[in-house]
Amino acid sequence: MQTVYILSGPAGVGKSTTSKALVRALKNSAYISGDYVSHMHVNGRQKPWESKFELSLIWNNILSLTQNFVSNGIDVVIDYVTFPDDAYWLRDRLKELNVNVVYTVLWVDPETLISRDQLRPPEHQMGKRCLILIEEFKESGLKNNHLLDTSQKSVDAINLVIEEIMNNKQYRIAD
Amino acid sequence: MQTVYILSGPAGVGKSTTSKALVRALKNSAYISGDYVSHMHVNGRQKPWESKFELSLIWNNILSLTQNFVSNGIDVVIDYVTFPDDAYWLRDRLKELNVNVVYTVLWVDPETLISRDQLRPPEHQMGKRCLILIEEFKESGLKNNHLLDTSQKSVDAINLVIEEIMNNKQYRIAD
Repeated sequence: MQTVYILSGPAGVGKSTTSKALVRALKNSAYISGDYVSHMHVNGRQKPWESKFELSLIWNNILSLTQNFVSNGIDVVIDYVTFPDDAYWLRDRLKELNVNVVYTVLWVDPETLISRDQLRPPEHQMGKRCLILIEEFKESGLKNNHLLDTSQKSVDAINLVIEEIMNNKQYRIAD
Repeated sequence: MQTVYILSGPAGVGKSTTSKALVRALKNSAYISGDYVSHMHVNGRQKPWESKFELSLIWNNILSLTQNFVSNGIDVVIDYVTFPDDAYWLRDRLKELNVNVVYTVLWVDPETLISRDQLRPPEHQMGKRCLILIEEFKESGLKNNHLLDTSQKSVDAINLVIEEIMNNKQYRIAD
């Protein structure tokens, strides 16, 4: 039985680093970057947070890739800012493939997020945009069992974070 | 009516540069890098030139993405080492979507390929691997009308190359 991991959270929370480490911890695994899939559409692209059409295109592409990987016995890690509605939509469309869907929203308190952001090279700093996404997640109807707070954890603890995501069943979306 | 452009050719022939310029010349367009799609599979990945399973997975992923884009009114540029069998396979699977499929194999004489390769930073030089792919294309049953020889053209001529690919109907795969 394959597992599809959706790693979400506000920008700057460590989604990519954690996703890449998770994909390397799995035996047969694929990595889908939602940002990359989003930018496959070049000319005519709308910002997905302003266009339902664009967001739907992105999620249909992520779904198709996920279906192909899972059908071939490959676990999937999706690295994308994913709100609960999108995660449940994906789970519903994967039902016939009989997979586990794990939805983990990485979380840090705003102070930690800003201090981590300031450690980045200036051209990669997100500034106040980090905080806007925190608010959007708070208003998204996200249930607490999908939250994984890494505020107190150092970057060295990434292996513990991955073990938690892989083994703690609280992050699974129930059928 | 949408168009799907498959830009192929041996490594080092300028596929990526040409594909990215082509995608920017189209009004509503998506760019699919076969190499990127191939490396979405991380652990358990086989080399696609040694594994039919892996090659099939890659092409099914490219097909799914292409179908989603075309269904949404978006032209697609596929940048990948594509042999005729793969191009015809894709065309067959896109038939019901009623699209044009343009299959262009960029070509340069071996001397030009090697001299261009030596202009790259050492870590990106392909060396003799360029020439192996030239032989594989020669043995692939590729028809001449899909070949676009850019040996005599400077990099400045990229706009002419793109116009040729977009407007010369010889590169289309007939239904």
